[in-house]
Amino acid sequence: MTVVSAVREVDLIIRGGTALTMSPRDGIVEDPLIIVDRGKILHASPWDPQMERQYRPKETLSAKGRLILPGLVNTHTHLPMVCFRGMADDLPLMSWLRDHIFPAEAKFINRETVYAGSILAIAEMILSGTTTCCDAYFHESSVARAAVASGFRLIPCQGFLDAGPKPGGDLTKQMEVARAFLDKWRGPSTLIVPALACHAAYTCRGETLQAIKKIAREENALFMIHLAETREEVEEVRSRFGTTPVRYLQKLGVLDGQTLAVHCNWIDSGEIDILAECDVKISHNPESNMKLAAGMAPVPTLLLRGLDVGLGTDGAASNNNLDLFGEMSIAARYHKLKEGNPTVMDATVVTVMATVGGARALRLDAAIGSIEPGKAADLILLDLSKPHLTPMYNPYSHLVYAASGSDVSDSVINGRIVMRDRKLLTIDADAAMEEVRAIARTIGRKTSI
Amino acid sequence: MTVVSAVREVDLIIRGGTALTMSPRDGIVEDPLIIVDRGKILHASPWDPQMERQYRPKETLSAKGRLILPGLVNTHTHLPMVCFRGMADDLPLMSWLRDHIFPAEAKFINRETVYAGSILAIAEMILSGTTTCCDAYFHESSVARAAVASGFRLIPCQGFLDAGPKPGGDLTKQMEVARAFLDKWRGPSTLIVPALACHAAYTCRGETLQAIKKIAREENALFMIHLAETREEVEEVRSRFGTTPVRYLQKLGVLDGQTLAVHCNWIDSGEIDILAECDVKISHNPESNMKLAAGMAPVPTLLLRGLDVGLGTDGAASNNNLDLFGEMSIAARYHKLKEGNPTVMDATVVTVMATVGGARALRLDAAIGSIEPGKAADLILLDLSKPHLTPMYNPYSHLVYAASGSDVSDSVINGRIVMRDRKLLTIDADAAMEEVRAIARTIGRKTSI
Repeated sequence: MTVVSAVREVDLIIRGGTALTMSPRDGIVEDPLIIVDRGKILHASPWDPQMERQYRPKETLSAKGRLILPGLVNTHTHLPMVCFRGMADDLPLMSWLRDHIFPAEAKFINRETVYAGSILAIAEMILSGTTTCCDAYFHESSVARAAVASGFRLIPCQGFLDAGPKPGGDLTKQMEVARAFLDKWRGPSTLIVPALACHAAYTCRGETLQAIKKIAREENALFMIHLAETREEVEEVRSRFGTTPVRYLQKLGVLDGQTLAVHCNWIDSGEIDILAECDVKISHNPESNMKLAAGMAPVPTLLLRGLDVGLGTDGAASNNNLDLFGEMSIAARYHKLKEGNPTVMDATVVTVMATVGGARALRLDAAIGSIEPGKAADLILLDLSKPHLTPMYNPYSHLVYAASGSDVSDSVINGRIVMRDRKLLTIDADAAMEEVRAIARTIGRKTSI
Repeated sequence: MTVVSAVREVDLIIRGGTALTMSPRDGIVEDPLIIVDRGKILHASPWDPQMERQYRPKETLSAKGRLILPGLVNTHTHLPMVCFRGMADDLPLMSWLRDHIFPAEAKFINRETVYAGSILAIAEMILSGTTTCCDAYFHESSVARAAVASGFRLIPCQGFLDAGPKPGGDLTKQMEVARAFLDKWRGPSTLIVPALACHAAYTCRGETLQAIKKIAREENALFMIHLAETREEVEEVRSRFGTTPVRYLQKLGVLDGQTLAVHCNWIDSGEIDILAECDVKISHNPESNMKLAAGMAPVPTLLLRGLDVGLGTDGAASNNNLDLFGEMSIAARYHKLKEGNPTVMDATVVTVMATVGGARALRLDAAIGSIEPGKAADLILLDLSKPHLTPMYNPYSHLVYAASGSDVSDSVINGRIVMRDRKLLTIDADAAMEEVRAIARTIGRKTSI
């Protein structure tokens, strides 16, 4: 008489291929067995037939000939700006912003266009391997609704801006809005972790920065701010406040380990000390920064100082895509040239930035960023059977120097397969494209398709 | 009684979509009609039903919802180095070269591995929109055979090197080899235009440089040379010859309008004057240059001086792919940042560099580089129905800032369809990958697939 052990039903089993777990303990696992249930990774190890027999999966993904890695984390986006993708390029930054982007935002951005743009942007991100992003834009609740509808993980930031196309109201009103946003988005979906953002030191009043940061602290929410993006910003802050942006924010008391500083292109060594002391998180957006000729953060130095640095695409109006593989390629290459040293920003370091480093920057590393039991099942598969990925000596090298977003074949977010063999399962891509084409037609510039 | 006009049979008709002709006369043509016969473009204009009725095509390509443009021109490759893709990254340049690449070349490079690597490299190039490249490597006849077999347009350069892994013989022997190579490859295929290459000023004797250039002049062949790639090269030339590389080559008399200088990263303003006076052609390889921390050519200045600059990927061991879309993206972005000016290297300028500018750099612009009657039918189609290419306000902007090689759907070289809907028609990609995987296994490093 044999003992029949109970077989447990689980949501998903992934088997085969090569897993880059991004967990220091497990490293690279050949022919892994990954068991997923109720959104989480239950088990991840080299294949074990006895273990596999204990589970009956509702769905399976074969990763044979594929690379498995944690879903990529985009630490900085303005998703609805896909509506302005390529509308105005190769222009002086201030003309781009003031003559093109701000007027277009004032005229065409509303809840509906934000939702439609967000759906298209999420389609693009899933198709290029991203499973989480941190976004800030107008009508951010519409962005969050798009994420929930698509099964995509999002940190939506309610944004505050005292200057620009749509300035906010008085301080009491702003604080109400901040609390209401956090209240509204805590609960409806585990995919959504709401946060707050002030646009920048030069576009928000000091009292706004302090009040919004205070609420973020009280509510244990991330506080995002653009910081030292351009030389002009540094000059403006210096002339108005008598010091540099990082020092100004430190004086206001808004820098800490729950602050995500985006860009940090123009910072001196004293400011790096401040960022390190305050444990500020950094979002590095090389493609957008280069395209706008804004500047580039001293990332190798920031990493040496132990700062958490993630990658971001910024909005599609200044990138012009949301593919983190491009950011990996440029981040790895640019800093080598800048430092005159091909050993900095090696492929492993850059893969960390795109995965668990990004999760740390967003303070989500307890939940995502690596393939480990207990973490959410946010995973992507890459198809390696392609000429440009052949042969393979080093999978990290392939990710950073040879692959592109279109090599991602499958995507799982919170245990749910959102893309299988490049087919999106939660978004009607054709409809999403047609909606944004219609918006583009109302914007009234030439569109060829 | 009606007059029935004769209907002419032609090889191929392409209709619909949007054509970027890259011809100053025609610019962008909506819904074009492109008629191809015997390898050449017979007609290209906005669609004209009367015109279309005069031809009966053997094959058709619908470009509806697609962008049509000239096939991309890669001005600098070492195709067989795909065998070493990702074998040794993130290393100091001299260690990469001397401890890894040179020993691997000495041990594993032969006619068979060169042929197998070239087939895989050509597959990768066609899949990413390239239809022509200029290559230099050992056993270059094997590279040329691979191009003929694949229907790919190639300038194979017979290379000369007096130092390095496989030094050439004496001068008389080298001159015989040069003439024999040109003789051999003039004639067998219109796809092949043979040329000569000396590796560099610091690896070839002065007499070799002069002798090979003399033959190139007599035979009206392109002469390719790596030039001022690294600071170390400049120092070595200076210490051995008492002057800088460009001045040294000028003194030797090898610079003229049939010289393709690759890299030109470390050149002073006097050297730019020399390059401009001699009408030297330039190959700019930003991804490889950055990855090796080699340096970057002052491209905006070179263009202002009227020099012809094309883009190149360099070999896959230092890139690590052969996708010119990556070069376009980085070339456009990097120089904006470097110059602190987002208006330099605009999307149109960079698209020119990847097409007709590259053709000019290779002295092939009478034959390829734009969609014009009389030129060879080297064309690619891009599928625009993708989230990351939606909406479209400006096709040049999409090519440079948003697209990747995988968006190329179809490719025609010399009037022959070599890829249709991403399926290669002249190469068995699976077999090509398997051959190179087998080579990688003999190289004996870890390969996961």
